[in-house]
Amino acid sequence: MKSTFILAIALATTSLCYGQNDSIMFRNISDEIMLHGTCYENLRVLCKTVGHRLSGTPAAAKAVAWGEKAMIEAGADNVWLQPVNVPKWTRGKESLQLKLNGKYKKVPALSLGNSEGTNGKPLEREIVAVNDYDEYAALPDKYVAGKIVFFNYRFRQDFINSFDGYGNAVKYRWNSPNIAAKRGAAGVIIRSMSTGEDDFPHTGSMHYDSSVKKLPEMAIGNKTADALAAACKKGRVTAIITSGCHMEEDLVPSFNVIGEIKGTEEPERIITVGGHLDSWDVGEGAHDDGAGCAQSIEVLRAFKALGYRPRYTIRAVLFMNEENGNKGGWAYLDSAKANHEKHILAMESDAGGFSPRGIGLEMPEVCKRHIRKYAHLFLPYNVYDFEKEEGGVDISPLHIKGDVPAAGLIPDSQRYFDYHHTANDVFEQVNHRELKLGAVTMAQFIYLICQHGLPK
Amino acid sequence: MKSTFILAIALATTSLCYGQNDSIMFRNISDEIMLHGTCYENLRVLCKTVGHRLSGTPAAAKAVAWGEKAMIEAGADNVWLQPVNVPKWTRGKESLQLKLNGKYKKVPALSLGNSEGTNGKPLEREIVAVNDYDEYAALPDKYVAGKIVFFNYRFRQDFINSFDGYGNAVKYRWNSPNIAAKRGAAGVIIRSMSTGEDDFPHTGSMHYDSSVKKLPEMAIGNKTADALAAACKKGRVTAIITSGCHMEEDLVPSFNVIGEIKGTEEPERIITVGGHLDSWDVGEGAHDDGAGCAQSIEVLRAFKALGYRPRYTIRAVLFMNEENGNKGGWAYLDSAKANHEKHILAMESDAGGFSPRGIGLEMPEVCKRHIRKYAHLFLPYNVYDFEKEEGGVDISPLHIKGDVPAAGLIPDSQRYFDYHHTANDVFEQVNHRELKLGAVTMAQFIYLICQHGLPK
Repeated sequence: MKSTFILAIALATTSLCYGQNDSIMFRNISDEIMLHGTCYENLRVLCKTVGHRLSGTPAAAKAVAWGEKAMIEAGADNVWLQPVNVPKWTRGKESLQLKLNGKYKKVPALSLGNSEGTNGKPLEREIVAVNDYDEYAALPDKYVAGKIVFFNYRFRQDFINSFDGYGNAVKYRWNSPNIAAKRGAAGVIIRSMSTGEDDFPHTGSMHYDSSVKKLPEMAIGNKTADALAAACKKGRVTAIITSGCHMEEDLVPSFNVIGEIKGTEEPERIITVGGHLDSWDVGEGAHDDGAGCAQSIEVLRAFKALGYRPRYTIRAVLFMNEENGNKGGWAYLDSAKANHEKHILAMESDAGGFSPRGIGLEMPEVCKRHIRKYAHLFLPYNVYDFEKEEGGVDISPLHIKGDVPAAGLIPDSQRYFDYHHTANDVFEQVNHRELKLGAVTMAQFIYLICQHGLPK
Repeated sequence: MKSTFILAIALATTSLCYGQNDSIMFRNISDEIMLHGTCYENLRVLCKTVGHRLSGTPAAAKAVAWGEKAMIEAGADNVWLQPVNVPKWTRGKESLQLKLNGKYKKVPALSLGNSEGTNGKPLEREIVAVNDYDEYAALPDKYVAGKIVFFNYRFRQDFINSFDGYGNAVKYRWNSPNIAAKRGAAGVIIRSMSTGEDDFPHTGSMHYDSSVKKLPEMAIGNKTADALAAACKKGRVTAIITSGCHMEEDLVPSFNVIGEIKGTEEPERIITVGGHLDSWDVGEGAHDDGAGCAQSIEVLRAFKALGYRPRYTIRAVLFMNEENGNKGGWAYLDSAKANHEKHILAMESDAGGFSPRGIGLEMPEVCKRHIRKYAHLFLPYNVYDFEKEEGGVDISPLHIKGDVPAAGLIPDSQRYFDYHHTANDVFEQVNHRELKLGAVTMAQFIYLICQHGLPK
C-alpha cells in the first residue's frame, strides 16, 4: 500500500515535471534562437555569396560547400555529402517580344524550367488568348494550329491560403505545352503563378509528355499579362519567342548535404529535418528554399548550444534538386533503404521564411492525435494549426515509399507567391524574426517528438 | 403539441440558417475585399501623393482631403470633418555627430517627437553610456552632470509578440530626458525602439515633466548604437547634437474625418471602426497607420458593395493626432457626449497592415464570452486569437471615459518594429494581401456584432 502510494506520487511528480520541462525547454529553444540564432546570417551568406543555384550548376556546387561548412559550424557530430545525380537544364539567352501597339517591344518574361527553346532562333507567330482550359477546349482547331497559345489563367486571390491558389493554377504551367502541341500550336505563353501586384515573371517546372512535340513555354508577369489580354481583345497580336533553353540528356553528379546529432538512447532511430538547397536560376532562392536550409541547420545549432542531447539521432538534410526532379529526395530514400535505417519522422520547411502558424501532419490519425495533445505548448509562440495535411516534396519519397510520418512547417502564406521563382526572391524579402521563429517551431516540434515519441 | 413542434422546427431552422448565413456572409466579405478591395490602392495614393503627415502640417491637411474623398468614393451615406485642435511640433534642421575614431562623423539620427532642440546651435559634450536604468542609478552624479547620457537599452528580441518588447523598452524614449535632467545632464541619446537588423533611427513621442529642464533627445539606429557602445567601452567619446526642434505653444486647427453608413433598425446606435490619419514626419506612415485608415474605409466600401444594410450605424473614423497628443480621440469622445450618442463598440486597427491573427477585446467578460462563441467562423481566415486585451489609442477615451467596449485588430507583429516611426515605413513594405485580409477580419467582426449584438 505504502509503496503503491509512493509510486503514485513519484509518477505524478514525474508527469508534472515533464509538462513543466516541456514548456521550459520550449522557452529555452525560443530564447536561444531569437537571441543567438545564426540562421539569418547563414541565409545572407548563401544568398549573397552563392545566389541562385540551379541543380547541376557551379553555383549549386558552391551551395553544397556552404551547407557543409554551416553544418560543421553548427556543431553537428557528423557531416557528409550524399551523392545524387541531377538533371542539368540551361536557360541560355532568351527574350519575348510582343507587338502590342504596332511595334515589337521586349517584355519581362522567363522560360519555364525544363522547357526546350527555339534553338536561339526567333519564332514569330500570332497569339491566340484563352482565359482557361474550358475556353481553350471550345476553340476550333484552326485558331490553334501554328499559333502561340496564351493561357491567361489568373491566380485565385480569393483563396485565403495562397498554396490553394497555387494548387489551383499550377497545371497551366506544368501541362499547357502538351495540350497545345496536341492541336498543332507552335508555342505557349502563360500568365505567371503569381499573387504579385507587379510584373515579375515566375519560372517553375513544366514537363513534356513523351508523345508530343516539345514547344517552348514562357511566363509573363501580371501587368504584362493584363496588357497582352487587353490587346488580344482588341485585335491581332503577334509575338517573337527566342529561347536558348535546353535540357541535357545525361544526369550530372551533385550532393545532398547531411549533418547529424547522434541520439543518446536510440541512436539508430532517425528524425530528419530539411529543406532544399537548389533553387531556380533567378533571384537568390531566399524564401525558396534557402530559408528552410538555414532553419534546419539552426535546429542542430540550437540543440548543441543548449546542451540538449536528443534520444534519437537528428539529421538536418539539405536536399538537392527539389525544383526540377526531386532526385535528392529519392536518393535519400534509396540510401535509407540500402542502410536499413529506421526513420521515425521527417520534417520539411519549404513554404518560405515567414511567420509560422502551424505544422502540417501527414501521418496516421493516432500520431496526429498524439501530437495534438501538446498543441497548447506552441500557442505562446503563435503556432496553432495542426489540422492540415502538409509535408514536403523532398521528404515525400521517404513518406510515400518509406512509410515515414511526415510534417511540414506552415508559415503565413500571404507573401510567398509574390516572390516564388522570381528575380525578387532575395534575402531582403526575408525578415529575421520571422525566419528565426520558424526555426523555433521546428526545433520545438522535434524536441517534442524526441521526448514523447510517436505511436507506431 | 403540434404547434410547439412546428415552432421548435422553425427555431432550429432559423438557428441553422443564421449559422449558415454568417459563414456565407463571412465568405462574401472575404471575396469582395480580396478580389475587389480598394484599400491597397487607397493606401498607395495616401503614401505617394501625401506622404508623411504630422499633426498641424500642410501634409496633414492634404491627408484630411484624401480621407474625405476616399470615404465618399467608398459610398458612405454621410461624410464630415470633425474639428480637432492639435499640437504643432517642428523638427527643423538637426544632426548628430559622433567622434568615434578621433574625428567627428554625422550619423543617422532622429530627434524624438515633442522634444526641444538646441536652438540650432551645436551642443558638444562627452557621452556617458549606460545599458539600462539600473546602471544609470548606480552612476555617481559627477559622471552625469554636464554629459550627454546614452541609454543603450536593447529591444528584447526574445519576446514573441513584439509589442511586448516595445512596452518593455518604450520608457527609455518617453522619460529619459526627465531622469537625465534631474541629475544635471546636458542631453540624451537613446538606442531606438527597434527590432531592425539595420541602422534606421526610430522617432516617437517623448514628454517633459513640468519641473525639469528640457533636454534634447535623439535616437540612433541599432548599428550606430552598437558602434557607439563599443567606442564608449574603449574610452572617451564626445558628441555634437544640433537640433532645431521646437513645440509651438498654441494648438492649431485640424480634423477627424468621419464617414458612416446609417443603420437600418437602430440607427441611433453606433459602431466605430478607425485608425489614425496623422503620422510621424518621416517615411510615409504606411503601416502606422495609413493601413488602419485604408482598412476602415474598406469596411464601409465592402458593406456598400455587398448591399449589406447593417442594423446599427457604422462609422469609419480617421483620427487626427494619435502620435503626439491623441487630441482626435478626445475630440471624438467630447462630440459623442455632447450629442448624447449611443456607442456600442469601437474597433481600431493600429498595429500595421500585416496578416491578421486575432482581435483583442477590452470589454466585460460577458461580452468576450459572447464573441468567442463565434470564434470558429474566423478560423478559415487564419484568425484564431480572441484572448488578448487590446484596443487602440484613438478609441481609448471612448473606452475608458465613455465605457464603450473596445476591440483591436491583432496582425502578426514580427515586422512592425522594423518600420515603426522610421523613414522605412513606406508603401512598399505593405503587402496587398496582408492589408486586405486585415480589412476582411474587421468587416467580418463588425458584421458579426451587427447580427448578434453585444450583451449589455
